[in-house]
Amino acid sequence: MKKLINDPTQVVPESLAGFVAAHSDLVRLNTEPDLVYVTRADNVKPGKVALISGGGSGHEPLHTGYVGKGMLDAAVPGPVFTAPTPDHILGATQAVNAEAGVVYIVKNYTGDLLNFETAAELAQASDIPVQTVVVNDDVAVEDSLYTAGRRGVAGTVIVEKIAGAAAEAGAGLAEVAAIAHEVVDNVRSMGVALSSCTVPHVGIPTFELPHDQVEIGIGIHGEPGRHRIPMTTADEIAGYLLNPIIADLGLVGGEGVVVLVNGMGGTPLSELYIVYGRVRKRMEELGIEVKRSLVGNYTTALDMQGCSITVLRTNQHMLDLWDAPVHTPALNWGNT
Amino acid sequence: MKKLINDPTQVVPESLAGFVAAHSDLVRLNTEPDLVYVTRADNVKPGKVALISGGGSGHEPLHTGYVGKGMLDAAVPGPVFTAPTPDHILGATQAVNAEAGVVYIVKNYTGDLLNFETAAELAQASDIPVQTVVVNDDVAVEDSLYTAGRRGVAGTVIVEKIAGAAAEAGAGLAEVAAIAHEVVDNVRSMGVALSSCTVPHVGIPTFELPHDQVEIGIGIHGEPGRHRIPMTTADEIAGYLLNPIIADLGLVGGEGVVVLVNGMGGTPLSELYIVYGRVRKRMEELGIEVKRSLVGNYTTALDMQGCSITVLRTNQHMLDLWDAPVHTPALNWGNT
Repeated sequence: MKKLINDPTQVVPESLAGFVAAHSDLVRLNTEPDLVYVTRADNVKPGKVALISGGGSGHEPLHTGYVGKGMLDAAVPGPVFTAPTPDHILGATQAVNAEAGVVYIVKNYTGDLLNFETAAELAQASDIPVQTVVVNDDVAVEDSLYTAGRRGVAGTVIVEKIAGAAAEAGAGLAEVAAIAHEVVDNVRSMGVALSSCTVPHVGIPTFELPHDQVEIGIGIHGEPGRHRIPMTTADEIAGYLLNPIIADLGLVGGEGVVVLVNGMGGTPLSELYIVYGRVRKRMEELGIEVKRSLVGNYTTALDMQGCSITVLRTNQHMLDLWDAPVHTPALNWGNT
Repeated sequence: MKKLINDPTQVVPESLAGFVAAHSDLVRLNTEPDLVYVTRADNVKPGKVALISGGGSGHEPLHTGYVGKGMLDAAVPGPVFTAPTPDHILGATQAVNAEAGVVYIVKNYTGDLLNFETAAELAQASDIPVQTVVVNDDVAVEDSLYTAGRRGVAGTVIVEKIAGAAAEAGAGLAEVAAIAHEVVDNVRSMGVALSSCTVPHVGIPTFELPHDQVEIGIGIHGEPGRHRIPMTTADEIAGYLLNPIIADLGLVGGEGVVVLVNGMGGTPLSELYIVYGRVRKRMEELGIEVKRSLVGNYTTALDMQGCSITVLRTNQHMLDLWDAPVHTPALNWGNT
């Protein structure tokens, strides 16, 4: 295993320390009293619904990179590929609660769900209303290692962006949760691995993938996908990912979408743009209009080579929220 | 070789097509008459000094990702790791010339220099004044494969950002060239490879690196660095890169710097933040203030695993230009 790390057991705290040092204009790291979470550097705005997400580390910039104006109020990073425990989530909740309630955005993994649910109960016991929105955008498999139902993957970024914009604009708790649910209902993803990832404290690849095969439908922790196929062209691979998404959404000509082509961590941008180009062509053939796009490493799986495609069926309300200003370490646009 | 590509000989045009489709709000791709370059989507502003950069592809987002308001007016991408020819550079020059002269920002490689110089002569023959600024920030080696003198690497991003801000603010030709030269004089970089890169049309790794070694001082095309050492910690590697930079700049306590920790393409963000954390600690020990930071994949070497560290000795004028709005596919901040 070759990684730019010091102690394999200290990857998360050391990476977090560097992250907040690099972005001290936007985020703060809490580590006292022994609770780890990242919050916005600016003050809590009284009466604003707070958005919190979190989950195992190893998917950077998810979720810490999306803390800031117009997106998350806090992110709770667990150990690599391991859910954060309820005490950390509760700590973040108490830190950013602004008396308007809190929305948890949780990727659909059993450990994350359980711990966010426990935190929600504890928060509600101290009179902080919490609504939990579960993201399950991965069409690859039903039930999987660590998951009942579909997994939550890169569509989470889109949920966080759009719900975050609603909260920033002053929407109430029910309204923020409703728009987040609407995004969840309309966003689908699927990924491919060209290589495994290697968990630092494990030190060997999570799975073996022959040099002439790729795994279609891979999970962002290296969980099994749908099937392995011989290595083939980007265009064919894009089809294997995109067709199930389009079918599951029931997309038809005339609709508008947001597209995210997401790198898994070890794949260069130039290749992601080739995949994106194929997605665009296919959408044009189908008469589906790509209204907005993101291409880059937004929800990674450590050093895995590969990518995922995410498609959101959109409407003008979602697009307006998408276009709203966002100022976070990993997404940044619009006037300050 | 596993890459998300179709035809290894068509990687650059296919990637460019996806790139401009994803960022049609910011950039345009010219391919007629058989000349390939990327320009800003908005109209040329009469009387604005035009900034053009370019070079071999494979370093994305460099240079095409830096075309836009406040940075480059055009980028000329050559084939992978191969300089663009003078006709393409001249075409870009004629396209973005706004009657105030043009500044070429060129990384110090023999082929790039030669072709940009030829283009400059042709442009000047048609009464377009051109100033060429050569970036040679890599302290690793003097002379190298493809280079006389030091190589130009990730410091180029900083030159393009600061000179671009000056041009956007209305500075004249000599002034824009002068600030670019000032940045070049004060920026230094050095990189490390944990793995080789693989050029698509070659299909095998550019060099062999044993599983227990890293190469200190690697070039962004896989050119030899200073030496190979046994794989070690991120902190030690950061020291091997940072110490020669600090020595070469003659940095002392009390000075201010901009720091870029740049990924080579195959290294996840979490590892780059660990390296950044070490750079910050070392700077604090030396009493050098890190005024601004960038951490991410800004000047890559295809799928290489590794990173580089870039340090700019800065002053208030440079910081003001750094902070000025920039709206490009790969760098985006400040009000529109």
